Amino acid sequence: MIKFDLIVIGAGPAGYEAAIQAGKLGKKVLIIEKEELGGVCTNKGCIPTKSLLNSAKHFFIANNSEKFGVKAENVTFDYLRANEWKNNTIETLRSGIKLMLEKQKIEIIKAEAKILDKNTVKVGAITYKTDYLILATGSRPLIVNIEGIDGPNVMTSDEILNLEVLPETITIIGGGVIGIEFASFFNMLKVKVTVIEMMEEILPMMDKDLAKLMRREMKEVTFHLGCKVTSIGKDNITFIDSKNHEKTENCSKILLSSGRQPNTEGLEVLKLEMFKKWIKVDDRLKTSEDNVYAIGDLNGKSQLAHSASKMAEIAVDNIFGSKTKKMNWKAIPWALYSQPEASGCGLTEEDAIKENLDFKCGISFMRSNGRFLAENEKKSTGKVKIIVDSKTDVILGIHMIGPYSSEMIWPAGALIENKITAKQVAASVFAHPSISETIREACLAIEE
Amino acid sequence: MIKFDLIVIGAGPAGYEAAIQAGKLGKKVLIIEKEELGGVCTNKGCIPTKSLLNSAKHFFIANNSEKFGVKAENVTFDYLRANEWKNNTIETLRSGIKLMLEKQKIEIIKAEAKILDKNTVKVGAITYKTDYLILATGSRPLIVNIEGIDGPNVMTSDEILNLEVLPETITIIGGGVIGIEFASFFNMLKVKVTVIEMMEEILPMMDKDLAKLMRREMKEVTFHLGCKVTSIGKDNITFIDSKNHEKTENCSKILLSSGRQPNTEGLEVLKLEMFKKWIKVDDRLKTSEDNVYAIGDLNGKSQLAHSASKMAEIAVDNIFGSKTKKMNWKAIPWALYSQPEASGCGLTEEDAIKENLDFKCGISFMRSNGRFLAENEKKSTGKVKIIVDSKTDVILGIHMIGPYSSEMIWPAGALIENKITAKQVAASVFAHPSISETIREACLAIEE
Repeated sequence: MIKFDLIVIGAGPAGYEAAIQAGKLGKKVLIIEKEELGGVCTNKGCIPTKSLLNSAKHFFIANNSEKFGVKAENVTFDYLRANEWKNNTIETLRSGIKLMLEKQKIEIIKAEAKILDKNTVKVGAITYKTDYLILATGSRPLIVNIEGIDGPNVMTSDEILNLEVLPETITIIGGGVIGIEFASFFNMLKVKVTVIEMMEEILPMMDKDLAKLMRREMKEVTFHLGCKVTSIGKDNITFIDSKNHEKTENCSKILLSSGRQPNTEGLEVLKLEMFKKWIKVDDRLKTSEDNVYAIGDLNGKSQLAHSASKMAEIAVDNIFGSKTKKMNWKAIPWALYSQPEASGCGLTEEDAIKENLDFKCGISFMRSNGRFLAENEKKSTGKVKIIVDSKTDVILGIHMIGPYSSEMIWPAGALIENKITAKQVAASVFAHPSISETIREACLAIEE
Repeated sequence: MIKFDLIVIGAGPAGYEAAIQAGKLGKKVLIIEKEELGGVCTNKGCIPTKSLLNSAKHFFIANNSEKFGVKAENVTFDYLRANEWKNNTIETLRSGIKLMLEKQKIEIIKAEAKILDKNTVKVGAITYKTDYLILATGSRPLIVNIEGIDGPNVMTSDEILNLEVLPETITIIGGGVIGIEFASFFNMLKVKVTVIEMMEEILPMMDKDLAKLMRREMKEVTFHLGCKVTSIGKDNITFIDSKNHEKTENCSKILLSSGRQPNTEGLEVLKLEMFKKWIKVDDRLKTSEDNVYAIGDLNGKSQLAHSASKMAEIAVDNIFGSKTKKMNWKAIPWALYSQPEASGCGLTEEDAIKENLDFKCGISFMRSNGRFLAENEKKSTGKVKIIVDSKTDVILGIHMIGPYSSEMIWPAGALIENKITAKQVAASVFAHPSISETIREACLAIEE
């Protein structure tokens, strides 16, 4: 029987980061992964989609730059070539993760773990003992119960990555981040896209104003909001629309992206307290068992790769480190790599209303920005919204839609965590001409 | 005789911003501009070059995306069309400036001002009196004294904007910001580019390490460093190289971009104290005359549009406002919109050494970053360098080269001004996968 300080189950951005952090503290760590290192993020999520979106953006640019003086003929998209780039990217990053784990002398087992109790894990015939257990088994696409959902034309975000030919049309069930990124991907590639969303607006994590702008900017995409899919046929889809009418539309391929479910199978033996279908944790990521932590998608708190890594850091700090760190769920940025891009961090206007806060908004539009006009049509979408505390002017949220949004959001977490005010940001100098100047404009637009 | 609270001479980003700020304080303001509203920035600098660079980047993408699965045939560059977009952008921004001035009820005169004394300005036959005078007359390309510099093939950054046909080759005298942006522009458009620079490295404001990377990344461009041009012929250029050998090379078009000189003509009457060829000012932008301020390129402190606007804000605050604000010259960002992009803010490593500071560096490379790998060749250049105070960990400088650098630099000013530490930045959550994560990596790389 081999004894570890820590066993980590799952090697996605939660698990591998936890192993590395514990390794850096000199702990004896085992990480067990039944699929590939990197988890959903590297293999089926962030990385492959961003790689494909990059290809689609290049296709879009090659097709739409005559106004800038650039004309290209016979622009074609080679799906196999795009996949090859995507797969190479995944491969490179996977190797990188392996190297980082090895550098910290982490033992890696690629096999299925069987948890026996909170101190004991079995892999094949071998039993491992551990002081601490970090569960980081992640999530998978939620298969909703719809008639015909198991049809051959229905794909989840997993299977869609294996496409080799562009479909003529695609119907996307669910207008969350995954659904909208794929909608944008196919839209840029001139595939006819329909999105069916149950809620009244797409992108629930996004400030409503901006989500609406995103939907409007994706002009060629058909959106059915407030609609519930009831059945899927061989070449059609039926849904109840917002006026309670049943509608049937033709469709070829279908992407099911209506949420994700935690991979809790095999964890039942631990009899952990649950929150709905997720494993319940506190702000230190501890479960109802003192030596068991659950991080990443598994606890349902924030299904983002970078949240997962942060949870890893916090969990390890609370196990082996200073035992002082806690998660701040209100300073986690997100980014949407669609066309246009969008991002946000902290409270939205709706959040602030819901929490009954005394807040103010500052809004700016990119259409009067020098770089925006140099690079985009005047009527293109671009908007920034800053939420501040009315009394202190401290920034509570930063939200944006428009070019470079995904790369402009980075300091939002640090600004919010360190209680920087909008006036402090507005007082600083921004490089001209940059689209980021609109962030300053939004700060300046906050009424006294 | 008409009396104003403030007369501003020059309507570039220094002048129009000063007028607007004073207008907001309810002051009676006259602004006089002999050319176009917006100054060099809008008409001959930032905006037209960024517009052209955007066109060139689209051309580059259309030509270089096969690896991503995007193939385009017969990619052509229509210079007239690119110019049309550029001119429209300029026109839109100029109208915007006019509107902003009008909104503050600023009187605008488009004519040459004749300064009579520190309270009196004449335009044509009319004399205007003022309590305060803000000089914002800007700068123009420096014409260095070289034999043949007045030849028909020699252009400055002004004339080059009127090109309508791509030259076969271009030789650029001066490897500063203007020279390198044009080098990148023509390089992306497949024009053979040669840069001749007097110093040992290009881009003097840039951290040396990163400047070297920039030069190396522009593989197709020929750089002659430490070389001094001695004469220009009809179709050749002669220079003394770093080993003191005279060399003559063939060339067709020549861009002279070896610095700028202040537009001080007509200001001599004020008998202001000078610093070399520039008007001397203090940190409140005041000249040696109590009621005369000199802002923007004219004082030689920082030749950037956003510095100019900041100076305007500070000057007006010290004339009509709180009288508390001062320039912080160490928190001004800059950005280079070349391929690759670069940006920086605060102290470089060389600055820190020169100032004899006790500092540490944190460095990260983009080549292990997920988004970077999804969108770029592995061997592409990308690097971030953070300079911190050794004792306090407070950030003193942020420097980067690589994709999105121009839009990632925005919080650097606020972070430096508010004495945020690298640990505070590293403790915050960054969106994954974003290239901005490399900024966090650089913070984490600072040795304890």
